[in-house]
Amino acid sequence: MLVVFHCMDVEDLKSGRQDYLSTGFQATNIGRAAELIGRMKEEKAAVFLSFTANMAASGLRGVFAEMCRRRFVDVVITTGGSLDHDIIRTKMDYGIGDFTMDDAALHKKGMNRLGNVLIKNGCYEFLEKAVRPVFERLYNDEVVTSPSSIAAALGSSVSDKGSFLYWCSKNRIPVFSPGITDSAIGLQTYFFKQRHPDFGIDVTKDMKSLADIALNADKTGAIVLGGGISKHHTIGVNLLRGGLDYAVYVTTSSPWDGSLSGARTNEAVSWGKIAEKARHVTVDCDATIALPLIMEKFLGD
Amino acid sequence: MLVVFHCMDVEDLKSGRQDYLSTGFQATNIGRAAELIGRMKEEKAAVFLSFTANMAASGLRGVFAEMCRRRFVDVVITTGGSLDHDIIRTKMDYGIGDFTMDDAALHKKGMNRLGNVLIKNGCYEFLEKAVRPVFERLYNDEVVTSPSSIAAALGSSVSDKGSFLYWCSKNRIPVFSPGITDSAIGLQTYFFKQRHPDFGIDVTKDMKSLADIALNADKTGAIVLGGGISKHHTIGVNLLRGGLDYAVYVTTSSPWDGSLSGARTNEAVSWGKIAEKARHVTVDCDATIALPLIMEKFLGD
Amino acid sequence: MLVVFHCMDVEDLKSGRQDYLSTGFQATNIGRAAELIGRMKEEKAAVFLSFTANMAASGLRGVFAEMCRRRFVDVVITTGGSLDHDIIRTKMDYGIGDFTMDDAALHKKGMNRLGNVLIKNGCYEFLEKAVRPVFERLYNDEVVTSPSSIAAALGSSVSDKGSFLYWCSKNRIPVFSPGITDSAIGLQTYFFKQRHPDFGIDVTKDMKSLADIALNADKTGAIVLGGGISKHHTIGVNLLRGGLDYAVYVTTSSPWDGSLSGARTNEAVSWGKIAEKARHVTVDCDATIALPLIMEKFLGD
Amino acid sequence: MLVVFHCMDVEDLKSGRQDYLSTGFQATNIGRAAELIGRMKEEKAAVFLSFTANMAASGLRGVFAEMCRRRFVDVVITTGGSLDHDIIRTKMDYGIGDFTMDDAALHKKGMNRLGNVLIKNGCYEFLEKAVRPVFERLYNDEVVTSPSSIAAALGSSVSDKGSFLYWCSKNRIPVFSPGITDSAIGLQTYFFKQRHPDFGIDVTKDMKSLADIALNADKTGAIVLGGGISKHHTIGVNLLRGGLDYAVYVTTSSPWDGSLSGARTNEAVSWGKIAEKARHVTVDCDATIALPLIMEKFLGD
Repeated sequence: MLVVFHCMDVEDLKSGRQDYLSTGFQATNIGRAAELIGRMKEEKAAVFLSFTANMAASGLRGVFAEMCRRRFVDVVITTGGSLDHDIIRTKMDYGIGDFTMDDAALHKKGMNRLGNVLIKNGCYEFLEKAVRPVFERLYNDEVVTSPSSIAAALGSSVSDKGSFLYWCSKNRIPVFSPGITDSAIGLQTYFFKQRHPDFGIDVTKDMKSLADIALNADKTGAIVLGGGISKHHTIGVNLLRGGLDYAVYVTTSSPWDGSLSGARTNEAVSWGKIAEKARHVTVDCDATIALPLIMEKFLGD
Repeated sequence: MLVVFHCMDVEDLKSGRQDYLSTGFQATNIGRAAELIGRMKEEKAAVFLSFTANMAASGLRGVFAEMCRRRFVDVVITTGGSLDHDIIRTKMDYGIGDFTMDDAALHKKGMNRLGNVLIKNGCYEFLEKAVRPVFERLYNDEVVTSPSSIAAALGSSVSDKGSFLYWCSKNRIPVFSPGITDSAIGLQTYFFKQRHPDFGIDVTKDMKSLADIALNADKTGAIVLGGGISKHHTIGVNLLRGGLDYAVYVTTSSPWDGSLSGARTNEAVSWGKIAEKARHVTVDCDATIALPLIMEKFLGD
Repeated sequence: MLVVFHCMDVEDLKSGRQDYLSTGFQATNIGRAAELIGRMKEEKAAVFLSFTANMAASGLRGVFAEMCRRRFVDVVITTGGSLDHDIIRTKMDYGIGDFTMDDAALHKKGMNRLGNVLIKNGCYEFLEKAVRPVFERLYNDEVVTSPSSIAAALGSSVSDKGSFLYWCSKNRIPVFSPGITDSAIGLQTYFFKQRHPDFGIDVTKDMKSLADIALNADKTGAIVLGGGISKHHTIGVNLLRGGLDYAVYVTTSSPWDGSLSGARTNEAVSWGKIAEKARHVTVDCDATIALPLIMEKFLGD
Repeated sequence: MLVVFHCMDVEDLKSGRQDYLSTGFQATNIGRAAELIGRMKEEKAAVFLSFTANMAASGLRGVFAEMCRRRFVDVVITTGGSLDHDIIRTKMDYGIGDFTMDDAALHKKGMNRLGNVLIKNGCYEFLEKAVRPVFERLYNDEVVTSPSSIAAALGSSVSDKGSFLYWCSKNRIPVFSPGITDSAIGLQTYFFKQRHPDFGIDVTKDMKSLADIALNADKTGAIVLGGGISKHHTIGVNLLRGGLDYAVYVTTSSPWDGSLSGARTNEAVSWGKIAEKARHVTVDCDATIALPLIMEKFLGD
């Protein structure tokens, strides 16, 4: 593990690309993450990408879309909220504000704050309209549907090339969302079900197809951004095959409270969710900063 | 908001109960949380309790059980992992280790690490056996079930008075788990479904009963421990009624990356998930320390 | 390290004292810290207490004072800001507000915010008047003084039994403050020196007396609250003796950026600042919550 | 504050420079920091740079050196540990390891761990030899010296162009280090003083020259990396002039415990350490990642 340590110098900065690998602390982990993702691709691992909804509300949406356009990833696992934002942003703009705005004043103006990102109420009205015909179609096709079917139907209903759902649909990359009802789209199912009481979302329907990807791959790798259900679902399914061969976590959460969101890659080794011999790294950084840096060499041409 | 500030003094320590409210920083927020929960109860608010799976693996499980035994809370929202741990611990002991143990060595010994809590593989073998007959019964009753039905059935299958599921079942406190398949129990549904292909879990089934609680209550309050899907589902459903009247968050996550897990109560005000006029506080602390302190005066007799 | 894990139960809560040790996560570390401090005292270790200025502005000031009154600690290492707050609060009250107040509005009102603690400008005017005669006396005694002499002189100038400086002075507990000029008191030296250009603070004067404590003790232990210069100075001097025998850190900082403030006790073992055979624990928690819990059994009668 | 929000797209990635400003969350704050530093320079503000010792042990040392070589900054405020690392690294290499190495094993090998950076004991033996003649010269010149004189003498004793002390010395950029004795160099003063009892470091000697910079500048700006004494000293001296006109903080610490290290720029506004009308931003990120990104456009040619 020990390497000689050259400090980042002017030449590194001039070359337009810092040599993060030999900079120490989290910069080194940025470098290791990039190296490890390179290895995943070289070895043709099935690549799992998981992220949280706030990231789909940020500029990372474009990076996700590009990763899916290039078939850089084979599976996406995310929350219902990511589907919300991805669909809304096919037509609507979000704003940038600040983390310390007056939230009661924002509420009065019909403005929802997500960190320093601002989302007008109108965005959710748009979503409602956009989603309803998709549900109608799904329902006509199959009364009880699944999260991955919803994601695929949403993706094929839009034409925005900045949408990851669009590219997943086009490139047949499955999008799993085991907690899909916890979202604005989920809330729509509540209203939809009032009109169609037999409508349902059976979350067990997706389990075999997800498991098969993990079981059938020669190697698997994961890029896990943030925590929560998407993170756990990604590593959990890899338990079935004896663990991931490569894992990159990007997180800002702390491990000291035993939370899954803050757990480092090491912890997953004890569970067999990452293999004992796997290569893995945890980058402690906001993904809006880390992901573009890590992906630069893969998407930058 | 400004109060005169007396320093904690020897008398406070001697009395066996620190006056956290006037201590400053997060100690003050512990005091405010206790005060606010007192208010929820006085005003007979419908109280939502949400927590993450790691907490059910900790000593907090006993606190949750006691809160449910006393009907201190009206709704529980949690992850599938919480159901896992609650059922396992009706019969099996967990160990305490350290955050920095050698995870490959632990894996070789069949020991899974969750922060500094250790769980033997045997625990999950026990779970498998415990859960199978419950699924059989549910399936015979209704081919496509719901998360809350699974939780209720699990609760009525055990007799451990340290189990929150036991008390929820006995006291008819609904337990919602919108992401239930992301868990060991969820993994069992994958195996169960291989034998019973028509078995399913329809997550839309729980939406009306959860919504009705929010819609029918005069006042609502929430005790939200940790983040993730349980946190969002708790505040999300309260959007339907114009927001929670009282909210206590306990979190160790940071808001600066726009994550829901790190979001303070303020942010939810902009969304209408907490009412503009609500009283609310965010305690930045590990719940294993914070919750016993906050609940001491309510459970301590 | 592995112990059987009983969950915290109702009886624990009823007894008025949670069994934090067996609760898991940071609650366990609270329990371990208390145990380890008990051990320090049993073995008559020289006990170092270090803390940051914000803590002296909080209710912890009373806990520090009590620890010094009882001679529970043998050395205090802290910043100049701690001296500021300790002296101001002998006569003036601080207020409690909130972390999200409007800072420009506060500034207009002459109110300084320290987290959720509020300090009027008048407090610093009081400090100026309180400190000047102390400087005059010190200067008449010795033209070039030292941080520990300033702390001792300040302590003997007040009579407030809630002041840790008062008790340190009375009980001849040395208070080291290697960065003393970085404070309001330090700013006063700037003005004082304009009138007395030969006045000075020689920070090397304190080094031998501090080193002697570490070198002459059979055993040493440290209670290190927060980070910064006080933390490092405490462990740094123990390098001279081959490391601390006992160490308790309480911190909210993260180790992932290589900062000293976030470094766990482990890291200090590599440096020989904590002995290889030492017992040590890092509690990840705000000290305003953690310290009263840890010290309860020692100060609670 | 509200701007239209375009998602980062493929073109941004292709151009080799992400448009962080419009990405949301901390990426936006990276963009704002760069913009604000540009403004500082345009308005010819006196620029204060403060950082912690760990950063001088990382690849950032080269960035600091370059900033000083170009006279991009006018004042440096840092800890004694930064002087240690800067001098050691004029001749010795550091290694990169991992955050989770076995610290007792490292200690046995004479290897000190600083996050994931590794430093051999030999480095400190080198430092001892390098520093002694500098102290002799300083002592012959003036029996009682000051931190800034030590820093200048150290800088002029080396010829490594990767050293920030070298460039500060050459370009007459003063380096202040109010807590200088808390370091390996400080420890050397303890040994030096045993041979020369009248040797001393008077920390009040630097106060006027530091204050004069703040008082005489038309505008001041600060780039504050990390926390501790260097951060506070930087903003504290700007109180004398009614506050900084521009401030960029980069921190990983949390504000919720009232610590100075975690305090956002807002808090300093209440104290008058940052002016009410100032422009300021807090970037929540490890400086090894953030600083190269922020400085890229200024140093990248």
